[in-house]
Amino acid sequence: MAVRWFYLSALTLSSLGLMCILFTVYWMQSWHGGFAWDGTIFTFNCHPVLMVAGMVVLYSAASLVYRLPQSWVGSKLPWKIVHAALHLMAFILTVLGLVAVFKYHNHANIANLYSLHSWLGITTVFLFACQWFLGFAVFLLPWASVWLRRLLKPIHVFFGASILSLAIASVISGINEKLFFSLKNATKPYSSLPGEAVFANSTGMLVVVFALLVLYILQASSWKRPEAGVVTERQVRGPGLPCQVGVGQGREEGHPGKAWALPGRPTQYHGGKPSSWKVG
Amino acid sequence: MAVRWFYLSALTLSSLGLMCILFTVYWMQSWHGGFAWDGTIFTFNCHPVLMVAGMVVLYSAASLVYRLPQSWVGSKLPWKIVHAALHLMAFILTVLGLVAVFKYHNHANIANLYSLHSWLGITTVFLFACQWFLGFAVFLLPWASVWLRRLLKPIHVFFGASILSLAIASVISGINEKLFFSLKNATKPYSSLPGEAVFANSTGMLVVVFALLVLYILQASSWKRPEAGVVTERQVRGPGLPCQVGVGQGREEGHPGKAWALPGRPTQYHGGKPSSWKVG
Repeated sequence: MAVRWFYLSALTLSSLGLMCILFTVYWMQSWHGGFAWDGTIFTFNCHPVLMVAGMVVLYSAASLVYRLPQSWVGSKLPWKIVHAALHLMAFILTVLGLVAVFKYHNHANIANLYSLHSWLGITTVFLFACQWFLGFAVFLLPWASVWLRRLLKPIHVFFGASILSLAIASVISGINEKLFFSLKNATKPYSSLPGEAVFANSTGMLVVVFALLVLYILQASSWKRPEAGVVTERQVRGPGLPCQVGVGQGREEGHPGKAWALPGRPTQYHGGKPSSWKVG
Repeated sequence: MAVRWFYLSALTLSSLGLMCILFTVYWMQSWHGGFAWDGTIFTFNCHPVLMVAGMVVLYSAASLVYRLPQSWVGSKLPWKIVHAALHLMAFILTVLGLVAVFKYHNHANIANLYSLHSWLGITTVFLFACQWFLGFAVFLLPWASVWLRRLLKPIHVFFGASILSLAIASVISGINEKLFFSLKNATKPYSSLPGEAVFANSTGMLVVVFALLVLYILQASSWKRPEAGVVTERQVRGPGLPCQVGVGQGREEGHPGKAWALPGRPTQYHGGKPSSWKVG
């Protein structure tokens, strides 16, 4: 994959993510009177924005950290810290998003956690919390064995993508539910597709497109850090790579006594023909 | 992976899939008066059942065909036909599910395709149609080149899983929407979690669990057909395997002049140490 293609994809993804957040803000600002933190309906308005920003956009950015070619070389530890820190920020936004809806419900005497949207949403956040703590304990702290990391890595990767998929299902059901509530007694009901309905439906579809792109990049082999013995074209031509992509035993700098990474972690490549990228 | 574990997983998955359908039937039968095909609300009741049966359960079964170890040996063509035929049946059920809701809406003078649930649902069915026709034209009919198949296979695989994820988002938003409609004027509203709400919410969560299991099996390497030069433990010990797992050039029986499969398709393995499963 050419460098230009990589930057184009990154730009498209960032723009789409930003649009998801801005569209949600615009929806809540233009049709629902904006934001507050006093328990009124304006507190509820923070909920969709914080969920889309935290559970979808920032979560995706955090998940994609290892797809940056810059993360393929040198020590892995700083990238692990960036990955964990961005996810922690995403989690904080998500929890604030939950606080917003609970605060509003309690203030307005509305029951919590009864709809399927809320059941799925709270399950997704619970899985996110488990995933973060497990990831922190096993992959960031130094005491887990290589065997345990090897065992849990595919599960961590699977749940990473699954939690995003569940977040999308939660967002879609949430937007749908909100529109049925807010357009219930409107002069132009939801079924006549007033401006708000078209705009919010489109925002939902935009979130879906964004998430599909993220999931595609997460699973596409050409975006992944080099596997043991295999380097793809994009991995060779990645931007800013100081021609150091290859495969070694994978001990991290700064942790001389600890194999931080799985075997096969890229360390250094010392040249060779593109047709013989099998190293080691 | 041991044979017992494989059969246990297959049994769990089949039971969960069957439960998803039966729970949806029970919901529509017990709380909404059952089924008809006359344009009344009883016609609508076919919609959730047909969508869960077609777009989730049968779609998943069709997607998992290549995870059966029996499909890893001998000619690939019969398994391609089973894969395409099951997906076609899933598509027919899905279209019938759409017909049910359009028939009811038209009969009751309700607008079609206005909610985000319907926008996402119709997009998912459209993607499913594209996926089926592209798969049929490129992977089943004999005229596509190996180069084109190689190019499109990762996209086909990605959209296979994505369409299931989108179907889940559609099912969740659909159940949520239906409950808000049907419990709007009920003596016990949705927010007080009457029996129907608990049952239908649980059905939605069951569908999510089923889909997560399917997605896990779809992406887990130990469930996949052997890659070129690599055979995993389960792939070696798979049930009913006549010790013929290995890697060859991949020409299909019955199509001597045509490389039906991608390079690396398993053909025959003639023994060897478990530690040296690299063949060819």
